[in-house]
Amino acid sequence: MKVWILGIGMGPQHVTAEVADALRAADYVVASEKSSDDGLLAVRRAVVDAYAPAVPIVAVADPVRDRSPGLTEPDYARAVADWHAARAQRYADVLRARGGVAAFLVWGDPALYDSTIRIVDRVKDLGVDLDYHMLPGISAPQLLAARHRIVLHEVGRPVHITTGRRLAQAAAAGQENIVAMLNPDELDLSALGDWMIWWAANLGAAGERLVSGRVRDVVGQIAVARAAAKAEAGWVMDVFLVRRI
Amino acid sequence: MKVWILGIGMGPQHVTAEVADALRAADYVVASEKSSDDGLLAVRRAVVDAYAPAVPIVAVADPVRDRSPGLTEPDYARAVADWHAARAQRYADVLRARGGVAAFLVWGDPALYDSTIRIVDRVKDLGVDLDYHMLPGISAPQLLAARHRIVLHEVGRPVHITTGRRLAQAAAAGQENIVAMLNPDELDLSALGDWMIWWAANLGAAGERLVSGRVRDVVGQIAVARAAAKAEAGWVMDVFLVRRI
Ligand SMILES: C[S@@+](CC[C@H](N)C(=O)[O-])C[C@H]1O[C@@H](n2cnc3c(N)ncnc32)[C@H](O)[C@@H]1O
Ligand SMILES: C[S@@+](CC[C@H](N)C(=O)[O-])C[C@H]1O[C@@H](n2cnc3c(N)ncnc32)[C@H](O)[C@@H]1O
Repeated sequence: MKVWILGIGMGPQHVTAEVADALRAADYVVASEKSSDDGLLAVRRAVVDAYAPAVPIVAVADPVRDRSPGLTEPDYARAVADWHAARAQRYADVLRARGGVAAFLVWGDPALYDSTIRIVDRVKDLGVDLDYHMLPGISAPQLLAARHRIVLHEVGRPVHITTGRRLAQAAAAGQENIVAMLNPDELDLSALGDWMIWWAANLGAAGERLVSGRVRDVVGQIAVARAAAKAEAGWVMDVFLVRRI
Repeated sequence: MKVWILGIGMGPQHVTAEVADALRAADYVVASEKSSDDGLLAVRRAVVDAYAPAVPIVAVADPVRDRSPGLTEPDYARAVADWHAARAQRYADVLRARGGVAAFLVWGDPALYDSTIRIVDRVKDLGVDLDYHMLPGISAPQLLAARHRIVLHEVGRPVHITTGRRLAQAAAAGQENIVAMLNPDELDLSALGDWMIWWAANLGAAGERLVSGRVRDVVGQIAVARAAAKAEAGWVMDVFLVRRI
């Protein structure tokens, strides 16, 4: 059987022509479902409705993941690995039962902080005979840049993309132009007070907010905007670029 | 007047729904033309033909840029700046004469190693009264990852995106997972012999080639594939990810 891993950006507006074609040619879409009220599942449904309304969505309940805030790095890695294993088992059951051409719709780009490839690899390891292919999608940092109308780096310079949890470490190691994703609710930016920040929450979705400026001048505004995004959408995801200037 | 800066990925297959919509609503497309035989201009034409055949393309001849290999970093920066200024002047003339809604089609994503935003900013500085907006496109590193079916980093780890010219410096500073773009014809990877590489040339275009493996085992293959890509397409652009493992 064949599996497509398709990047859908933040919704139907970001779907590329090749993703739409692959979706139309699929027999079904496999989507994880976190709870009955799952915003990301709703976006996947909107994508299927817009491009391939005849293709059924098979929702697979997402296993529970240990998200305790106090996890050390090895415990965190283990929690993620357990969760991947449990998801893989559920997907393997669905793919074995249905066969044909399955599509996974990935938020943003499957190449950035996404576990779909790893999970599909595990499904293979569980003995499901499949070939998979991947198509890129618009990622959150790209939409951040587009909304702020900026390039992600200065001329000929690097951009370092990391997690909120590793931001301080990257700055300490001399990085001066950093995109942070997977940010915790409270991220202390006080060490970067002099830097510039371009911040966004809920890009392309309900509650979208943008803030930019000198870190020390706008941290308060960001906290307010983040709370407002969450109040409006019921969830919040944020991404930002910080640059030493 | 209004200017759209639209990311088109590597061609029509990567155009997103919102980019197609913006293109259809434009009065004309402004495209720089490097020579009579310009592969990138041909891709822009293909995008317009596919999504907005009624929209005319205004080709603007590209000023000559100093690309001498021996340039020091300040001279390089000055050469780029002169070239931007000359381009801006030419674009300003076109936009002033035509007004309305103009679209610039950017290869890949306008947020990554692209000067369109800076040039449009300069056009504004030259006194053209315009508002610009930007929409993201699929970038070369994303397509690299999709073709190799990989995530651009290990779980929860950073990805450092830089130029071929700064690759050695990034590795020396401790980066262990690096994407290199804007690579010179001969890039010496011998210091990274133990690392893994995922390499691609001419992604999504004529001459596409992929190579992956341990750097020391595949550098020869890469040189051959690069030459073959160039022979097939008449031009070559490559991008790669290297990871210390
Ligand atoms: C699990 S990662 C998935 C990233 C995704 N694959 C991509 O390409 O953008 C989730 C993180 O991406 C960022 N993100 C995703 N969607 C976002 C959005 N709509 N607005 C702001 N940040 C977003 C946030 O940093 C969030 O914590
Ligand atoms: C001026 S930069 C433009 C990057 C573009 N804005 C993007 O988002 O990918 C050109 C560099 O991008 C990479 N690149 C662009 N298109 C490519 C392709 N089709 N195949 C391989 N590399 C490509 C190469 O490293 C090339 O030197």
